[in-house]
Amino acid sequence: MKSKQIAFLGLGNMGRPMALNLARAGHSLIVYDIMEAAVQQTLEEAKKETTLSIKSAKSPHEAVCEAEVVITMLPSSPHVKELYLGSGKLIDSVKDATLLIDCSTIAPDTAKEVASEAKKRRALLMADAPVSGGTAGAAAGTLTFIVGADAQTFDLAKPILEKMGKNIFHAGTNGMGQVAKICNNMLLAIHMIGTAEALSLGKSFGMDPKILSEIMSKSSGRNWSLELYNPHPGIMENVPSSRAYQGGFAVDLMAKDLGLSQEASASSRSSTPLGALATQLYRLHSAQGSGKLDFSSIIELFGKKLG
Amino acid sequence: MKSKQIAFLGLGNMGRPMALNLARAGHSLIVYDIMEAAVQQTLEEAKKETTLSIKSAKSPHEAVCEAEVVITMLPSSPHVKELYLGSGKLIDSVKDATLLIDCSTIAPDTAKEVASEAKKRRALLMADAPVSGGTAGAAAGTLTFIVGADAQTFDLAKPILEKMGKNIFHAGTNGMGQVAKICNNMLLAIHMIGTAEALSLGKSFGMDPKILSEIMSKSSGRNWSLELYNPHPGIMENVPSSRAYQGGFAVDLMAKDLGLSQEASASSRSSTPLGALATQLYRLHSAQGSGKLDFSSIIELFGKKLG
Amino acid sequence: MKSKQIAFLGLGNMGRPMALNLARAGHSLIVYDIMEAAVQQTLEEAKKETTLSIKSAKSPHEAVCEAEVVITMLPSSPHVKELYLGSGKLIDSVKDATLLIDCSTIAPDTAKEVASEAKKRRALLMADAPVSGGTAGAAAGTLTFIVGADAQTFDLAKPILEKMGKNIFHAGTNGMGQVAKICNNMLLAIHMIGTAEALSLGKSFGMDPKILSEIMSKSSGRNWSLELYNPHPGIMENVPSSRAYQGGFAVDLMAKDLGLSQEASASSRSSTPLGALATQLYRLHSAQGSGKLDFSSIIELFGKKLG
Amino acid sequence: MKSKQIAFLGLGNMGRPMALNLARAGHSLIVYDIMEAAVQQTLEEAKKETTLSIKSAKSPHEAVCEAEVVITMLPSSPHVKELYLGSGKLIDSVKDATLLIDCSTIAPDTAKEVASEAKKRRALLMADAPVSGGTAGAAAGTLTFIVGADAQTFDLAKPILEKMGKNIFHAGTNGMGQVAKICNNMLLAIHMIGTAEALSLGKSFGMDPKILSEIMSKSSGRNWSLELYNPHPGIMENVPSSRAYQGGFAVDLMAKDLGLSQEASASSRSSTPLGALATQLYRLHSAQGSGKLDFSSIIELFGKKLG
Repeated sequence: MKSKQIAFLGLGNMGRPMALNLARAGHSLIVYDIMEAAVQQTLEEAKKETTLSIKSAKSPHEAVCEAEVVITMLPSSPHVKELYLGSGKLIDSVKDATLLIDCSTIAPDTAKEVASEAKKRRALLMADAPVSGGTAGAAAGTLTFIVGADAQTFDLAKPILEKMGKNIFHAGTNGMGQVAKICNNMLLAIHMIGTAEALSLGKSFGMDPKILSEIMSKSSGRNWSLELYNPHPGIMENVPSSRAYQGGFAVDLMAKDLGLSQEASASSRSSTPLGALATQLYRLHSAQGSGKLDFSSIIELFGKKLG
Repeated sequence: MKSKQIAFLGLGNMGRPMALNLARAGHSLIVYDIMEAAVQQTLEEAKKETTLSIKSAKSPHEAVCEAEVVITMLPSSPHVKELYLGSGKLIDSVKDATLLIDCSTIAPDTAKEVASEAKKRRALLMADAPVSGGTAGAAAGTLTFIVGADAQTFDLAKPILEKMGKNIFHAGTNGMGQVAKICNNMLLAIHMIGTAEALSLGKSFGMDPKILSEIMSKSSGRNWSLELYNPHPGIMENVPSSRAYQGGFAVDLMAKDLGLSQEASASSRSSTPLGALATQLYRLHSAQGSGKLDFSSIIELFGKKLG
Repeated sequence: MKSKQIAFLGLGNMGRPMALNLARAGHSLIVYDIMEAAVQQTLEEAKKETTLSIKSAKSPHEAVCEAEVVITMLPSSPHVKELYLGSGKLIDSVKDATLLIDCSTIAPDTAKEVASEAKKRRALLMADAPVSGGTAGAAAGTLTFIVGADAQTFDLAKPILEKMGKNIFHAGTNGMGQVAKICNNMLLAIHMIGTAEALSLGKSFGMDPKILSEIMSKSSGRNWSLELYNPHPGIMENVPSSRAYQGGFAVDLMAKDLGLSQEASASSRSSTPLGALATQLYRLHSAQGSGKLDFSSIIELFGKKLG
Repeated sequence: MKSKQIAFLGLGNMGRPMALNLARAGHSLIVYDIMEAAVQQTLEEAKKETTLSIKSAKSPHEAVCEAEVVITMLPSSPHVKELYLGSGKLIDSVKDATLLIDCSTIAPDTAKEVASEAKKRRALLMADAPVSGGTAGAAAGTLTFIVGADAQTFDLAKPILEKMGKNIFHAGTNGMGQVAKICNNMLLAIHMIGTAEALSLGKSFGMDPKILSEIMSKSSGRNWSLELYNPHPGIMENVPSSRAYQGGFAVDLMAKDLGLSQEASASSRSSTPLGALATQLYRLHSAQGSGKLDFSSIIELFGKKLG
């Protein structure tokens, strides 16, 4: 792939390593973050590797006005809407035919609205491409991207996303990347809590949670949480439950994604009873002081000492 | 293995084919059911295969009094308790050192109580060995047995169970077979409903449930229901959702197993919020007239026409 | 009270009778609705009573530019935000010191934002005053208003609201009217469903729901749904359950208010597990085709024939 | 009423003061408890009041064999079943036409079974009469009794129950006393948690919980928990929330009654989703160490500091 001029906006714990991986792949980056310190940290890390082409911009406008590709990685729906459509209105700053990729996890309705405005007012190409894989995946370039875009835009975005990730899924048209991400994470929360309940229930009868995990992993209870991310301490190595729930995917981030699932449930008038209860349980767990722990720590909510 | 004298009590849709498979393996069976018709059907099916040794008894006592092994397959906890410990008191009819295997799915507390009485009053060997795999698995001899018993008893039971099933798990001491079965099925119900909610939510945004299933199957939402038993019609062949939810594992049977999970939650004072809600949703689904459909039909509860 | 120039925007099933009651009290009204038909219906109803002073405006701007008081009654948060702060920006059209009363039921965060902008940019007086009591209460002038405003603004608003309602509560500062309304309706939904569950459970054991209602009404289960709005047909006269759930407060409106409660739960990171489940059950009930019925029809969700 | 020979079995914190009140009304009591200490405490308290006629029996049989009325107050279903129908079989010890009143809170199915056996084997009169009102009500003689019995038996039981309580409800035939009690307490738990959620949600937006309580008490959110037993500290005097949740009705007792509601839901195949979630939340609250606190302490589960 030919080297491209890429504007990267949003240099947090996810965005920074993603931008660096794009530069390592030979692209020319111009980066921006509302926090000056985040910009400086990115530039310093880039300096350690002499061949990288990264410079910074003073404003979103300056960052994007000459770019062929714009990538954004922001915290929530209002940030994305404000940046693209608000007072600064990014979609007015970019050149025609620019490829816009928003990697934030946001409400599908916002993703659709931004894409619709982008296409309506200007002939821009837009994709929503939320990620999973966490900061470790961002650093290693092994993220998963779930992309909502028309086929042509997906084909253009894919080789760029492949410099930051390993699995690139095409979920459908604009907004569908967000829909698939939200549905997946809601389902993940549900089977994580379900796994925690099953292991706790078994243990309360004196059953060894390791044996119970083995049996259910070979039976119809099988799921990702049980097999690859067991929430009970001492069953698997190298998962958060074996290091006091440090690292991993924080309860507060899961609670945020579940909040998006409930916004989507309301917006589409869909019924998601287990999703709603999972949302409340993660919110409860956070309110009790566990917001920064890995989300598999939900097993501790059930209040009996583990270990 | 040497041919054994086996008493088999409980010749319903599961018990009958299980008994026939034991006879096919060369064992001598004496069978009993409280329903005379069930006994007759078993004998008639046996007659089609000339080599099988199966005869019937007029009472549980007559069935078991000369047996080396007794296997029971009954509908619920009270039936099991009444048969073994009640007025007829099976444990007083059997010879010393008889191996007793109860394949019913019942409350762990009942399984423990029966085993405890059997051991206390007589030197009997007892195992709880609930099955999964349904009537198809019973016919094919591919059931899964989850066994609660001491190690010696498990070793004796295993070669017999292998004539009826493919996977024989040792879950722990008496009652643990039931615990593991109940935990597994509670977790299964949770991820089935979770999968149904996720697919319905995605679909309400216009997302193709087939693509969504593919993406989640390769992501952290992955689970047995999604991968092997997809509840949305038209995604997989040869699953109940592709034949109007006929066959499979009935809603009412899942509701019964979930009831056991909530009895276990009460008895052990464990908290199982998603398990409790799943129980209620299956009960609601049944009350709305779907009790005989396969349990993956829960996706229809959410009320928007599928397909 | 001296007659005032009042602009009334939003002439739906609630707004129209409210506006008429203000005119009946001697105020001069200038009314507006985005739907021309709603304006015409209001003017025609006004004509039947010769003394009323009501005229219509062609735009929000025209309606409010000379008003002493502006009252708005709109469907949802985005409508309110757009009207007051959006492209037309009502807060720039009004005179200084105008009293603004928004009677819509919306998100507390939106109410706070609008009030804050109104006060920041212009020295305006703003109150949020969501109502309860339904269309019957609006016609009879017996609504309940729950008001969020500073004390001075509340004192100014109260005599005006008293022309449309009977109970005027001061809940606190801006936004608190919405908070109290949302909390009340969430609690109402919870005890309505709880009452429905209790009556259905009792009935399934053969208990007379009328006797059960009497006993619980004199015991600690007592609540507004049970005493004044019994969901089981045949227990009370003149409630929706006695007329096939026609009239009253629609399932879809309750679902909307519950949606606001869950938005508020997310925004404040509060945990509302029963509120979340009530939300889902109303959404499920609506999806099954009961959206237009009174909210006490939730008892029918449980699927056993009543009556 | 003529003085009667009454056998009273079960002298715990509820039974002891109930028995004393019967003796104060002039009845002759013969008491029994499996714990000798409970018998002694009852006799000692009786001695302080010289006119009371109370003596103790060495066995249930001795207590009841000459009694005209037998009253039992036991912890749970298995205790009641064992006492009346088990090895000692109380129903074989009593004289013909004895009036049996079981004041325990137990499963309706057990109450029905015991009454059915009592009537079938012997011409006995049986009532289930679970109480509410707690130890304070037991001491003051102001309990509420909810009675399941035929009309003749109810008429005989009523004057006796009136010596121990203030409100005596006739719920229907045998078992209906239990049904009504369980339904009432399930509904109580639901509106207590709902009230706690609503007050917590309001507070998280800065709303004064006292003002919010006042507004909802005059609105459709009104319920017994809110008006008479407010769970938020500092709103009412003389309720458990104003004395650190000491005294009152313990979380573990509420969890027990909720367990009965879920047993009843399973047995009758009724759907009680909020009841099931309330059960789990009380169990969770207990598991986190609050089992001995008053049940209004559930507001603390939501984890934000109150007061």
